Amino acid sequence: MEGGAAALLVPPRVRRGWFVACRSADLRARPIVTRLWGLPITLFRTEGGVGALVDRCPHRNVPLSDGTVVDGTLQCPYHGWRFRPDGACTHVPGLSGAPGKAHGASAYPVREQQGFVWIWGDPEVAPEGEPFRFRLADDPTYTTVRRTVRAEGSMHMVAENALDVPHTAFVHAGLFRNDKPERTPITCVVEREADRVVCEYVGEARPEGLVGRLLSPSGGTVTHFDRFYLPSVVEVEYRIGTENHILVDAVLTPEDDYRTVLHAVVSVRTRVPGWLLKPVVLPFALWIFRQDALLLAKQTATMQAFGEQRYASTEIDLLGPHILKLMQRAAAGRLTERQTPWRKETTLLV
Amino acid sequence: MEGGAAALLVPPRVRRGWFVACRSADLRARPIVTRLWGLPITLFRTEGGVGALVDRCPHRNVPLSDGTVVDGTLQCPYHGWRFRPDGACTHVPGLSGAPGKAHGASAYPVREQQGFVWIWGDPEVAPEGEPFRFRLADDPTYTTVRRTVRAEGSMHMVAENALDVPHTAFVHAGLFRNDKPERTPITCVVEREADRVVCEYVGEARPEGLVGRLLSPSGGTVTHFDRFYLPSVVEVEYRIGTENHILVDAVLTPEDDYRTVLHAVVSVRTRVPGWLLKPVVLPFALWIFRQDALLLAKQTATMQAFGEQRYASTEIDLLGPHILKLMQRAAAGRLTERQTPWRKETTLLV
Amino acid sequence: MEGGAAALLVPPRVRRGWFVACRSADLRARPIVTRLWGLPITLFRTEGGVGALVDRCPHRNVPLSDGTVVDGTLQCPYHGWRFRPDGACTHVPGLSGAPGKAHGASAYPVREQQGFVWIWGDPEVAPEGEPFRFRLADDPTYTTVRRTVRAEGSMHMVAENALDVPHTAFVHAGLFRNDKPERTPITCVVEREADRVVCEYVGEARPEGLVGRLLSPSGGTVTHFDRFYLPSVVEVEYRIGTENHILVDAVLTPEDDYRTVLHAVVSVRTRVPGWLLKPVVLPFALWIFRQDALLLAKQTATMQAFGEQRYASTEIDLLGPHILKLMQRAAAGRLTERQTPWRKETTLLV
Repeated sequence: MEGGAAALLVPPRVRRGWFVACRSADLRARPIVTRLWGLPITLFRTEGGVGALVDRCPHRNVPLSDGTVVDGTLQCPYHGWRFRPDGACTHVPGLSGAPGKAHGASAYPVREQQGFVWIWGDPEVAPEGEPFRFRLADDPTYTTVRRTVRAEGSMHMVAENALDVPHTAFVHAGLFRNDKPERTPITCVVEREADRVVCEYVGEARPEGLVGRLLSPSGGTVTHFDRFYLPSVVEVEYRIGTENHILVDAVLTPEDDYRTVLHAVVSVRTRVPGWLLKPVVLPFALWIFRQDALLLAKQTATMQAFGEQRYASTEIDLLGPHILKLMQRAAAGRLTERQTPWRKETTLLV
Repeated sequence: MEGGAAALLVPPRVRRGWFVACRSADLRARPIVTRLWGLPITLFRTEGGVGALVDRCPHRNVPLSDGTVVDGTLQCPYHGWRFRPDGACTHVPGLSGAPGKAHGASAYPVREQQGFVWIWGDPEVAPEGEPFRFRLADDPTYTTVRRTVRAEGSMHMVAENALDVPHTAFVHAGLFRNDKPERTPITCVVEREADRVVCEYVGEARPEGLVGRLLSPSGGTVTHFDRFYLPSVVEVEYRIGTENHILVDAVLTPEDDYRTVLHAVVSVRTRVPGWLLKPVVLPFALWIFRQDALLLAKQTATMQAFGEQRYASTEIDLLGPHILKLMQRAAAGRLTERQTPWRKETTLLV
Repeated sequence: MEGGAAALLVPPRVRRGWFVACRSADLRARPIVTRLWGLPITLFRTEGGVGALVDRCPHRNVPLSDGTVVDGTLQCPYHGWRFRPDGACTHVPGLSGAPGKAHGASAYPVREQQGFVWIWGDPEVAPEGEPFRFRLADDPTYTTVRRTVRAEGSMHMVAENALDVPHTAFVHAGLFRNDKPERTPITCVVEREADRVVCEYVGEARPEGLVGRLLSPSGGTVTHFDRFYLPSVVEVEYRIGTENHILVDAVLTPEDDYRTVLHAVVSVRTRVPGWLLKPVVLPFALWIFRQDALLLAKQTATMQAFGEQRYASTEIDLLGPHILKLMQRAAAGRLTERQTPWRKETTLLV
């Protein structure tokens, strides 16, 4: 993973996988629009379930999201054509016969679970498996917070940034770690499988910055994992001492090649009481995110100004290059090939 | 005309034909700019007639429309080169010799009639025939109103929309027709010739909406024709009873692939007196147009978001597919081929 | 040089040559950004000299200009990588080993002289020769003024405009010359060598407009040269009578294909005292420049609307076509070929 690597400006567009389309609470009586890899998709709720259609009437290409839900169908605002959640056209006003298959709309498979509406990323392909489940979101002994934010960066850039340790000493100086002349070596164990890559940080001290002190005033042994699951989940898990457990999951939805939505679900169990945690930790987390978002937007602008993405990595770019490789493989449809598991230990100075 | 049909995003760019460049009243002492298929054209008025030149000085490519009319010529603002309405360069200040043919500007053939300046759409090709004449505009027994409006849609999209009946029950609900479970079948007779397509609606009742009641409170037999003439005229003609006759002509000028100017000329003879007609009907017509313009802008935005125009038509898309075929044929220069006339009867529920 | 000549919309991008990156006074403790042919370059000042790096960190493509100067290096804001003025990467925080050659940034050769920071236009090629020297800028018997302005035009368009005489009667009517039916012929001697083209105007009277009267109320013999030096210097030199000498140099920096910065250095010796010259002549010169800038912006917009640059020149386009030929030759790397000097006399009516 060392040396320079040139890549095209179009990031790998992973389609086969479940993506969060919206939060359940945001989809009510009126249809709404979400985007996946640049294409608008309209979501609408009927008694028979949620529909997710390509947001373009097959008849004359107006947005179906401007229509209304009528009798369990979405009705186009131009000529009143009606579509079921599965895309079938049930009614063409004025036509004496019945509409046919050619008059239907493309429909994405839909699941609704744990407060999110998920869609399968390719309307032409039958879904495999089920959406990601948030491990602790339903556990009453944890405080769970959800937030949705946006970053101007490719899904890969956002995932790499979220799981990258070295930048925290600069972009978030003082919050987690600091840059200093004397650093301590720790061992990072990276393991890549067919659909995921995981890094365990062995021998890490409790982060000395404000966040570490806040969550665990008493210190203690640290267990720290960073994980990426295809197509789009990043996960950071910390245990500090025996009492403190933090699990951060962010599911990424690529609205566009360089615009990514993060649906974050954070579950925490700590000595600090839950009611106190939310008002203190949440603004903090959003502040940290804004620092990253600013950085990502500049990274995107620079790549676009130069017309290319050209990275020179070192061995402490622990996860980013693996995430890119997984995404490229998934976008090329080579996920079903048998992959040899990959494991490496690297020294990182923190 | 049933089933799906994919087309490129670039609409057929018809050039051979007369297009309205501006209204006569809008062209005075100063040159003005109009656009045809994306290219700016400057219009200027001299004692010897109107000139229509490609709006780019052949010398150093500044807009001639920034110049001034001097001695029957248009003078460039940069170096003072002068051009006659036929494009010939008559003077290059500072040059001891005379300018040559290579220094001339491209000129469009021009006609001025019935209050409009018309240009032939291709400066490289000699015009055939004369511009469209508005049949009733000069008849003193009719009240004639002119209006110029703009829509964000291709010339084809605008023409189809203007002559489409089924959308009126949705986009203009309550004004002409309404959507309802019980509809009445009427017969639509479509006839296509080499340069036009016409639809007669047989057995139609007086439209029950506000517009119908306003124009013909007493009801009566309805005669209704929708017509399209190449390159760009849409015409709607209604006779209701013996006293009411409405002829709506709109000449379309494609400023750009997806921006179209409509020069409308509406001639009406009805029991309602002319002086009352204008203040009541005109705001109404503009309101209806704005409903369509909103729809067309969304259709355009959707097609551009998806990078294609992809239509799935049914048999009650009576005129749109024919208009597209005529435009494609005209853009490909296949108008002179002998075409077999085409005729079909279709049932429409209204 | 007569007749029409079509060219692509991309102007010749001359890279081999010294360009002004900024004025020395504008580069202080914080890094700044300049642009050359569309690419951002960051400039930073250390004790060891000025650095000019491609404004993109080789690691993750964020702009280095957002970084800070630390210990004679520029430190990236994302992961803290450090780069010397020569581009070498000296430090990767967290990495146990040393960074290698692949982790360095592209660096432009730099010179600082006469109050300007110059860069060699190609980071991949060793510089030849030294930057242009302003002949009279250090002469205490002259009043020297510097100004930096911007024009929306290609480097070639701006250079041609700056050295073009005929347009002054139209764009700057009344200031230098006027359009009039009776004009006087003068002789223009154009000589082109491998890296320059010069025009001498023989027999010219003192310009009758306001500028001529101001500079030389008493009249006198006029010596007038217009010169262009590759890659980017335009020079106008006037001597009027024995006492008045004006040398205008403008060094052009192509920020983009159609955006050019002019760094002007004007040295004047005249009977009018220097302290009086600045407040009167400077606003005047900026006014004239704004007239040209307005014209150039319209020329650019027109070329972009038509998707091409298409010029029809005459023999009194004395320098523009030569400047374009020199730039094309330089952009194609054919400057080292032996060129036969070129000389021609042309009559111009002024």
